[in-house]
Amino acid sequence: MSLTLALHRSLQQTPDRIATIFGARRRSYREFVDRVARLAGALRALGMGAGDRVGILALNSDRFIETIAAVWWGGGVLNPVNTRWSVAEIVYSLDDCDTRLLIVDDAFVPLLAAIDARARHAPRAIHAGDGQAPPGLASFEALIAAHAPVADAYRSGDDLACIMYTGGTTGFPKGVMQSHLNLWSASIQRLAEMPALRNSTNLHVAPLFHIAALGRVVMQLIAGESQAVVAAFEPGEVLAIIEREAINDTVMVPTMVQALLAHPDFAKRNLRSLKRLGYGAAPSAAAMVEQMAAQLPWVELSHAYGLTEACPIVSSNPPENHGEAARRSGLSRSVGRCALGVEVKIVDADDREVPRGTVGEIVVRGPNIMLGYWNKPEETAQALRGGWLHTGDGATMDEAGYLFIVDRLKDMIVSGGENVYSAEVEAVLLRHPAVELCAVIGVPHARWGEAVHAIVVRRPGATAGEAELIAHCHEAIAGYKCPKTVEFRDALPLSAAGKILKRALRAEYGPQPPAA
Amino acid sequence: MSLTLALHRSLQQTPDRIATIFGARRRSYREFVDRVARLAGALRALGMGAGDRVGILALNSDRFIETIAAVWWGGGVLNPVNTRWSVAEIVYSLDDCDTRLLIVDDAFVPLLAAIDARARHAPRAIHAGDGQAPPGLASFEALIAAHAPVADAYRSGDDLACIMYTGGTTGFPKGVMQSHLNLWSASIQRLAEMPALRNSTNLHVAPLFHIAALGRVVMQLIAGESQAVVAAFEPGEVLAIIEREAINDTVMVPTMVQALLAHPDFAKRNLRSLKRLGYGAAPSAAAMVEQMAAQLPWVELSHAYGLTEACPIVSSNPPENHGEAARRSGLSRSVGRCALGVEVKIVDADDREVPRGTVGEIVVRGPNIMLGYWNKPEETAQALRGGWLHTGDGATMDEAGYLFIVDRLKDMIVSGGENVYSAEVEAVLLRHPAVELCAVIGVPHARWGEAVHAIVVRRPGATAGEAELIAHCHEAIAGYKCPKTVEFRDALPLSAAGKILKRALRAEYGPQPPAA
Repeated sequence: MSLTLALHRSLQQTPDRIATIFGARRRSYREFVDRVARLAGALRALGMGAGDRVGILALNSDRFIETIAAVWWGGGVLNPVNTRWSVAEIVYSLDDCDTRLLIVDDAFVPLLAAIDARARHAPRAIHAGDGQAPPGLASFEALIAAHAPVADAYRSGDDLACIMYTGGTTGFPKGVMQSHLNLWSASIQRLAEMPALRNSTNLHVAPLFHIAALGRVVMQLIAGESQAVVAAFEPGEVLAIIEREAINDTVMVPTMVQALLAHPDFAKRNLRSLKRLGYGAAPSAAAMVEQMAAQLPWVELSHAYGLTEACPIVSSNPPENHGEAARRSGLSRSVGRCALGVEVKIVDADDREVPRGTVGEIVVRGPNIMLGYWNKPEETAQALRGGWLHTGDGATMDEAGYLFIVDRLKDMIVSGGENVYSAEVEAVLLRHPAVELCAVIGVPHARWGEAVHAIVVRRPGATAGEAELIAHCHEAIAGYKCPKTVEFRDALPLSAAGKILKRALRAEYGPQPPAA
Repeated sequence: MSLTLALHRSLQQTPDRIATIFGARRRSYREFVDRVARLAGALRALGMGAGDRVGILALNSDRFIETIAAVWWGGGVLNPVNTRWSVAEIVYSLDDCDTRLLIVDDAFVPLLAAIDARARHAPRAIHAGDGQAPPGLASFEALIAAHAPVADAYRSGDDLACIMYTGGTTGFPKGVMQSHLNLWSASIQRLAEMPALRNSTNLHVAPLFHIAALGRVVMQLIAGESQAVVAAFEPGEVLAIIEREAINDTVMVPTMVQALLAHPDFAKRNLRSLKRLGYGAAPSAAAMVEQMAAQLPWVELSHAYGLTEACPIVSSNPPENHGEAARRSGLSRSVGRCALGVEVKIVDADDREVPRGTVGEIVVRGPNIMLGYWNKPEETAQALRGGWLHTGDGATMDEAGYLFIVDRLKDMIVSGGENVYSAEVEAVLLRHPAVELCAVIGVPHARWGEAVHAIVVRRPGATAGEAELIAHCHEAIAGYKCPKTVEFRDALPLSAAGKILKRALRAEYGPQPPAA
């Protein structure tokens, strides 16, 4: 199960099918594989040995996808760097896993001097842009032109494919080690359960350094399908590309979907080619999902829950659970059941499985679960104790195996000795017509330890105040779960993956509890 | 990627879904997994340690499927014995891989005395029947009743799952070692490319000791679907079950399909539930496929090519290549393109890839390829030389990667220094309206070494003679490829898998060349 095997198949069967689309540039699989094999040769000539790390710090592009494939073809390991990071964080990840080669695009060339100054080994940089390479940098295109294609290194199984840093938003970054088997089985399991449309074109709008997008790149390559990519999410441009390229599939986070639905071009574009829209990171986005279903009734919606350590999909809620019946039964709020090939349990603090309906931590097992954290044997042993990945996510499971996320366990509010799961309160608030987005956090309180506090972004024109929203909550949930205070803002801070940065919100209210 | 992982998932998500149907007996996944875990406990109590072989010599039944799962759940390795074998062949396989436990049904209890007398270690026998166990045999049902469920051994990856003996029709049997990863990836790759219908019921009509059926058992278990099974193929019963159980999917060999189409009940039964019919072992069954498409127009037909060593699927020709356009283009005669997750090349005798359109040997690579042959390091090294499985099957590949089987390489006829591929001649003969079945073989000839000889079964009422059929061939192919002689018979000898036993036919004409 080498990640490059599928390229040989595409070259043999469908060499003229389009592999990548970026702006006006379209490359067939014949061109794609040729460029990948040449770039792999160049990376080897620049010192990439078997298992050596190659970083990429770039916006999305077709060259990003070529880099992913070329590093694997040449036998290396990819370190896709988070583009939202500070120089200190970037340098940390390069140093941590000893990344000596770094592919950068024009957006990040300006950071190179600072990176070089602080990194233990200043990385050899390759410029992946359209123009002339800046002085001192190798040119991506010149390297491809100058090197002959090399044979596929054909690494597979437990051989390392990626080191992907996580936790930038919730603590000290850890390098998640993903093997060829991990990424291959995550993709093939997903394809088995929800096959890619045949002869379809997928659009990547989320950053490719994130596993949700990178995992989808792998899936499209395995299935031999086409993939279009935008440099970064811009709603008007995304709407235009869906129409122009007749995009069939895409994966977004709820905030992106909301931006599309709210964009003035939404009604003007022909979006009928879109057949499937996957969304993630949305345990409390019920209102958005309803809006999406209403405005894109021909699109199959599915919700996936996952994490980098699972490459990423743990569970998914299929299209049939997005209709009116599922909304009534509550099934539309589930993140679905564990995916094909995956095992999931809900356990207590002693790793004992809890009865259905009881809140506990989601633990996961399967061939898609990471090898561990790079150079962190203790954190690895802790995360994978007993052979199960401990997700840190709190959830219940119903009698049919459906998972309902209640919150990040470490985000749970403990107020007056009672556990309050933010997601439950947020779901109630989102049912109020005035609420567009919200985050519920615990703030320090002299009497209860923590008090439930809601931060709300109102819909345009809505005027509901604190008292009205608190009263609304009291109608639906126990008093101790209701916000004691409500604060209104114009926006909420978001992570690169589009998740609300609750940690940043909490930080405004005082010292943070240690990360779980 | 343990083969038992999916059972945990079914138990968690769909415990009430039907797992197996056999006659009037239906078992839910809850019952199925409970019985499997108890039977696994019994097998362990009877001495099955991790990696120990357990044989099964039985007609198809739900207990056969339970046995497959229980051996894996308990940590053992399955040896599914070919029910068409002589006692000598059975004993060979039991001795060869040291099988000490043997599950037998009533059909094979009578062989036990002879097996015990000749085997190096008389196996401990377990009676899998409905009535009282014969004296001296343990009872399958009593064992399940008497043993508590044990925990899943959860073997996975390269751990051995099956030893499946092949070559009974073409030489000395070799034990193909199939790992958990081999069988799991073969199934998941197939599911990814051509997903099982959701909430579907599959019917097994081929013998479960054969990889085509056993591989399908694994696929249904991984997908958590239902499977019905008949003890053996009887066309009237199969038609009745398709109607009664609303069967959606099945896999057959062409001779079975022909028997169904020719049965008087064919027109009387409601077969509308049938959505997919896979067929294999049919490189020259074009006429049968046309008939099938004409009489079951609502069924998606697909043709798979594979072998035990590949667990089994190497390539498949999808439904869209079964229409009129594909018949005109010749694509309907292809065995398709290499499956998702698999790599295929056509090579010459020195393992160099040949140009498209040139006849050579099919070689295959992928996670589904066997570990090797049990206790046969030389044959293993030979079969897997260079990291590719050498199939012994001759084929061409077209520019789009479609494979066209020309013949078993070792079945090729060499006449007057020219290579004649039997399948090519057979395909021509089958286009004649009088020909129902045929086999073309080489028979010893003083002048040409071998002469091309055709053995033909005529359609009912057809009267065409030798001269007419030879003249028909001369219109289509070169003179040296045309049969010199034609012989008419009422039937052809078939293997358990429904393939024509050419070796048996050839044996009638003199000493055989050594197996390749």
